[in-house]
Amino acid sequence: GLPASPGAAIGKAIFSADLAEELGQKGEKVILVRPETTPDDMHGIVPAQGVLTSRGGMTCHAAIVARGMGKPCVVGCEALQVDLDNRRAVVKGAKVGPEGEAGRAGVAGDKNAELLEPSTADMVINEGDIIAIDGATGRVFSGEVPLVEPTLGAEFRALLEWADRARSLGVRANADTPEDARKAREFGAEGIGLCRTEHMFMAPERVPIVQAMILAETPEERKQALDQLLPMQQGDFYGILKAMDGLPVTIRLLDPPLHEFLPKTEELAVEITQLRLTGGDREEIVRKEAILRRARALSEFNPMLGHRGCRLGITTPEIYAMQVRAILQATAQLIKEGCQPRPEIMIPVVMGAEELAILRELCLEVMQAVAAETGIKLDVPIGTMIELPRACLTADEVGKVADFFSFGTNDLTQTTYGFSRDDAEGKFIPQYIEKKILAHNPFAVLDRAGVGKLVKMAVELGRQANPKLKLGICGEHGGEPNSIEFCHLTGLDYVSCSPYRVPIARLAAAQAAIKHRK
Amino acid sequence: GLPASPGAAIGKAIFSADLAEELGQKGEKVILVRPETTPDDMHGIVPAQGVLTSRGGMTCHAAIVARGMGKPCVVGCEALQVDLDNRRAVVKGAKVGPEGEAGRAGVAGDKNAELLEPSTADMVINEGDIIAIDGATGRVFSGEVPLVEPTLGAEFRALLEWADRARSLGVRANADTPEDARKAREFGAEGIGLCRTEHMFMAPERVPIVQAMILAETPEERKQALDQLLPMQQGDFYGILKAMDGLPVTIRLLDPPLHEFLPKTEELAVEITQLRLTGGDREEIVRKEAILRRARALSEFNPMLGHRGCRLGITTPEIYAMQVRAILQATAQLIKEGCQPRPEIMIPVVMGAEELAILRELCLEVMQAVAAETGIKLDVPIGTMIELPRACLTADEVGKVADFFSFGTNDLTQTTYGFSRDDAEGKFIPQYIEKKILAHNPFAVLDRAGVGKLVKMAVELGRQANPKLKLGICGEHGGEPNSIEFCHLTGLDYVSCSPYRVPIARLAAAQAAIKHRK
Repeated sequence: GLPASPGAAIGKAIFSADLAEELGQKGEKVILVRPETTPDDMHGIVPAQGVLTSRGGMTCHAAIVARGMGKPCVVGCEALQVDLDNRRAVVKGAKVGPEGEAGRAGVAGDKNAELLEPSTADMVINEGDIIAIDGATGRVFSGEVPLVEPTLGAEFRALLEWADRARSLGVRANADTPEDARKAREFGAEGIGLCRTEHMFMAPERVPIVQAMILAETPEERKQALDQLLPMQQGDFYGILKAMDGLPVTIRLLDPPLHEFLPKTEELAVEITQLRLTGGDREEIVRKEAILRRARALSEFNPMLGHRGCRLGITTPEIYAMQVRAILQATAQLIKEGCQPRPEIMIPVVMGAEELAILRELCLEVMQAVAAETGIKLDVPIGTMIELPRACLTADEVGKVADFFSFGTNDLTQTTYGFSRDDAEGKFIPQYIEKKILAHNPFAVLDRAGVGKLVKMAVELGRQANPKLKLGICGEHGGEPNSIEFCHLTGLDYVSCSPYRVPIARLAAAQAAIKHRK
Repeated sequence: GLPASPGAAIGKAIFSADLAEELGQKGEKVILVRPETTPDDMHGIVPAQGVLTSRGGMTCHAAIVARGMGKPCVVGCEALQVDLDNRRAVVKGAKVGPEGEAGRAGVAGDKNAELLEPSTADMVINEGDIIAIDGATGRVFSGEVPLVEPTLGAEFRALLEWADRARSLGVRANADTPEDARKAREFGAEGIGLCRTEHMFMAPERVPIVQAMILAETPEERKQALDQLLPMQQGDFYGILKAMDGLPVTIRLLDPPLHEFLPKTEELAVEITQLRLTGGDREEIVRKEAILRRARALSEFNPMLGHRGCRLGITTPEIYAMQVRAILQATAQLIKEGCQPRPEIMIPVVMGAEELAILRELCLEVMQAVAAETGIKLDVPIGTMIELPRACLTADEVGKVADFFSFGTNDLTQTTYGFSRDDAEGKFIPQYIEKKILAHNPFAVLDRAGVGKLVKMAVELGRQANPKLKLGICGEHGGEPNSIEFCHLTGLDYVSCSPYRVPIARLAAAQAAIKHRK
């Protein structure tokens, strides 16, 4: 087939989105196999390891959606006859034989696997059979094959070192864990440009504490929960700052709305109905009803544009205060141990200078307190994520109260286009590309005509207000060559991308510098 | 109390948001009475006729939320002791006596009503008792009082005529029905700036046809449903164009995402669970499951940024083609009858020129067809609603394929700020105003620093590309004096607002012209 989205995936071949969703929710690994996908298949694509289709080209629905999600995908595999009625796929006259070739995170073919190629006998893949796909080459394998981790060879390393000498843009990575941070450093990242803190709240053993914090009815109850989270967060930051010792780590304070940490209202409503009709435990019903009421009150029509980011920091300052304290205590601890931690505190979803000024004050108060308690001098930069059009339009004011701007171009693309990524990539972007309304998926390649215009405006206004302002980008565009060229031309200081994209970013930054050498 | 949001309301005094919601869903008229409101009360404010609180000032939660919704509200009525435990409110030593005074759509006090004022005897309002509030004066009445419709007196009419001579901005109204159109004309509107078409799809007798159109599994099924809707839509447009004979009527094609016309997934899931556990009808379960599947597939994470507006027009062109045909057939019919219909077709949610170019082509094709069929010459302007930042940023391209721009500043405010209005006004805007992060609710008063900057950019780029471009505004800001001044200064041709705000807009437009006379 066609190599529609790189990476390798292994799982059970599943022929319907419904079943893929069902098995995916149970934690099973599945590859969704369809003649082609449509928006109605989205719920099956999300939980799948990879997608395989017998029809379609590089800009078909499956290809665009999978690339958007960073999920391996092979499309237009025409040798495959997908028989939905009998829930199987047939390869007419497939020959059997070992073969191996691996791209990045590729499939190392071995003797247990059969590469599907036309031959004399038919091969049948029944629903539930294990298959593997290699989205970098378009190959499809029957059976289990071992996956190989990507590595940088010596020659590629040498090339990257030459690139480093040519480029002017810095390259950082987005990483939320010490493991990712180490991986990023290995690939040459010069810092962490985006360390998200919400995943730390979602660890299974912490969810009950986070939920207790959200459901708290008094400030005391909330404080109790936050006091439990503080040492955990401190441990998280200690690990990452230590892994990146000597290099900057931009830590974004809590970003998603609180209802994301509660169960879904639909699930709760169905559970309560079931418990009631089947004579369920009275106490459990009461408990679930309390959670449902709170989840309803917190639920939002458009969470992407809702009560999140710095808006939470303004209305519930205790949460941000706890996070800032955790960052600073971890920093003081590392300094005492002789390390050189370089955290940077990033406030998300700012729409203007006023929010940032208030939260900057909160950070500085905590900084003074922790410095006094530990006797360690702390001087941590405080900046903001620029991800709303209004933050760009008022960057002359925002720049006065920020030490750095980091462009969150995923969200900035969402608001500039009025596209909810979760909805648009599945429902209409593929058609838009097919009809040439869009030249690219704007979440993959930065849109210079619209989003880029706002970024440029923010860079100019921000630097005028504050010549020392540091400027970076931490959206996914930070790892895409065309977008990296734009960042070079716009005069950003660095790009930040997923660890695995760091080598590409180093090369692309060098290419941009060479192409536009003055 | 304080007159927090103008207009009069009558209903049962209800002391909890849950009960207000429950009764509201049954169609009962309620006034939510609370010591003060919080984001947790939103579900009770939405269905209430009005809100009354004993505490809070002009910028408290209830005041801001009610003003945002255009719902009458009295706050800080300190004579009222709200006793939530006993579900009643007490006015210590209230005197009893008739009194009457009415603002716009005000309360005409009469002998059946008692104005609550301190006196010698206590007065008790029990839950369920009828009360009335007048949000223009802050008065609260016990018992039924007749409401009066607002009228323009002769002196006010004279003043407005003087204003008309001074102003340069045109004033249109937003109206979806012939009745509203007539009301608007009576108040001096010079046209309809926004005629929404989705309400026409939501009439109870049409919902089954609209749902059949959405659930259609073949193009034929869909066409059958659209063929049923065509004469209905034609009738709608005939009525409005006739009421506005000789004046322009800007008709916006379907805007909301299709799932808004289906039942909520949570309700369906609970109904299905109930039917299953109680041995419900097999066929009904199957039918409901089919709707649930479709509703799930169509459901969106952020409907505001989802598959709506021109995105529907691009992916399901049959719907827009039907609407355009209905507009043009109604126009031809009226011309035959000797009228002067002046429709303008408006394409919503455009993010750039490409979408508009394709849909303009579709409109022109239908126009040619209807002209050929009816033998009537049709020359209907085709323009777009500018409501996304990217449409402003690329207005030099959009202007080339548009006859007019109408700024949809409600949605433009949502995307520029990254605020979902439905969520933000209830959850954090009140606190933002209290903390002076926002000077005003940006959905009430147009934000010149951010949204205004984008509007100006679009006006300049659009006019450069197309000097004949007509420019208007149809967000709620079109009826707010400070925002109208901005529109005057930015060189728009007209503002459009709710019919009841037309007189204010005429005055404000004159004031702006006089203040900034060159």
